[in-house]
Amino acid sequence: MKTYLDCIPCALKQALDASRMAGADERLQKKILDEVCRLIPRFPLNATPPQMGAEIHRLIRNLTSNSDPYKKIKKDSQRMALDMYPELGEEVKKAEDSLAAALKIAAIGNVIDFAINDSVKIQRELEDISSHEFAIFEYDKFKESLAAAHTVLYLADNAGETVFDRVLIEEISTGKELCYGVRGAPVINDALEEDAKEAGIDKSARIVSNGSDAPGTFLESCSKEFRDIFLNADVIISKGQGNFESLYGEGYPVFFLFKIKCLPVARELNGNVGDLILKQEG
Amino acid sequence: MKTYLDCIPCALKQALDASRMAGADERLQKKILDEVCRLIPRFPLNATPPQMGAEIHRLIRNLTSNSDPYKKIKKDSQRMALDMYPELGEEVKKAEDSLAAALKIAAIGNVIDFAINDSVKIQRELEDISSHEFAIFEYDKFKESLAAAHTVLYLADNAGETVFDRVLIEEISTGKELCYGVRGAPVINDALEEDAKEAGIDKSARIVSNGSDAPGTFLESCSKEFRDIFLNADVIISKGQGNFESLYGEGYPVFFLFKIKCLPVARELNGNVGDLILKQEG
Repeated sequence: MKTYLDCIPCALKQALDASRMAGADERLQKKILDEVCRLIPRFPLNATPPQMGAEIHRLIRNLTSNSDPYKKIKKDSQRMALDMYPELGEEVKKAEDSLAAALKIAAIGNVIDFAINDSVKIQRELEDISSHEFAIFEYDKFKESLAAAHTVLYLADNAGETVFDRVLIEEISTGKELCYGVRGAPVINDALEEDAKEAGIDKSARIVSNGSDAPGTFLESCSKEFRDIFLNADVIISKGQGNFESLYGEGYPVFFLFKIKCLPVARELNGNVGDLILKQEG
Repeated sequence: MKTYLDCIPCALKQALDASRMAGADERLQKKILDEVCRLIPRFPLNATPPQMGAEIHRLIRNLTSNSDPYKKIKKDSQRMALDMYPELGEEVKKAEDSLAAALKIAAIGNVIDFAINDSVKIQRELEDISSHEFAIFEYDKFKESLAAAHTVLYLADNAGETVFDRVLIEEISTGKELCYGVRGAPVINDALEEDAKEAGIDKSARIVSNGSDAPGTFLESCSKEFRDIFLNADVIISKGQGNFESLYGEGYPVFFLFKIKCLPVARELNGNVGDLILKQEG
């Protein structure tokens, strides 16, 4: 997905949030915003938003000497989500269609995203899971692809969300070779190997680092091992907006599973902010 | 008031809105954002937000060759407000305390501000005027100053809001020499002489251009005539955030009358977004 002009003020706001999260004082926060402003004219509109995000967050980590500004928030999200895990499992068990329920839980887990909107309250979202419906739900296509698949690659999004992903992975992993792809280095609140392990993903899937510090999936910045897994997977499930923004339109038959959090992505899909999405490209 | 770091992403968003309003195509919008990004590092934190705003909007008018991008919106606001004028007058007439009612109407009129939030709906605000209370209301001080005043300067904010100002001006102008200060050239949706005249302000006050194109009041950028009026007025009433942001902390005994529209201003006054304010500096 190309960068919308609306992504630019939003990127600056995110840079400010991240600088504060990294403990920068006001003077350093201003220096960071100035440096981000110097970066922006170098990005053409056909770059994707996470390409800009990758450079911005690299710059913040360098200027603040904080290699993982979101560490505490990630820990908190993981703890909150782990507390909810038994309840999530119950929701799937009592559902008529357990796969559809697990997909919905994984999509709702996508609201754990402090990078985009720290006021979104996952607890409120989960109070009544049944009241949420997918706005785009290519369920039959997904079931068919999954039934025929031997290898599945599941692209993680945020820490905490990992626990919600586990619920879906447990539902679909039987008889498959399932890889759970995480970021290779800290960026925003994106999940790392340690988060996936803590969420218990390793009980049903192989956790694989993508080798990249981008808040999305750019094959050219990923390790060869990850690229091979990506290019040979029978089914790819991509969680979150960062992965969507970097992969949508690139021609891979990925199933995108997420909640729309901003107007540019809503426009891209003719949807609305807040919509739950399960959609395959093409 | 100094620029908060949060003002920077907001200024970029406003620049994008203004570029679209000015009819710029996507390529020109990007060029404008790039130029604004190049401007930002040159602004120190002790500049006020409207100083940055003045340069940004000047840049947009130049790059788009559109000398008044908000012309249509201003016209629409004026028409909407003029339609409401009889109803506003009735509200004052039926109030127990007509001065307090006129102050409230003038403050509520401050939601006509498309530059900051185009989704704010004045109509909704006005449905039940009595339900709005001032969060800061230095009414006794205001009444005393006004009673002792011979000359009053009223600093206008936006087009449309002028009609709400007229209601207050009619309430306070008897026996005073009242000047209504407007911008000297188009900037955002700020009121100009023609808007003040169309609102009927000239029936009770002398309309004076401040000679400046800044979206606030910087005496050094104003005409000598306006500066003299400002420095000699017994009472100054300042409408809107732009005037507040440029004058608050400058040491003049101005009464600020407005509705808080963003977090930085809320922080400056220990208030909340949405609060109605009548407050004298110092």
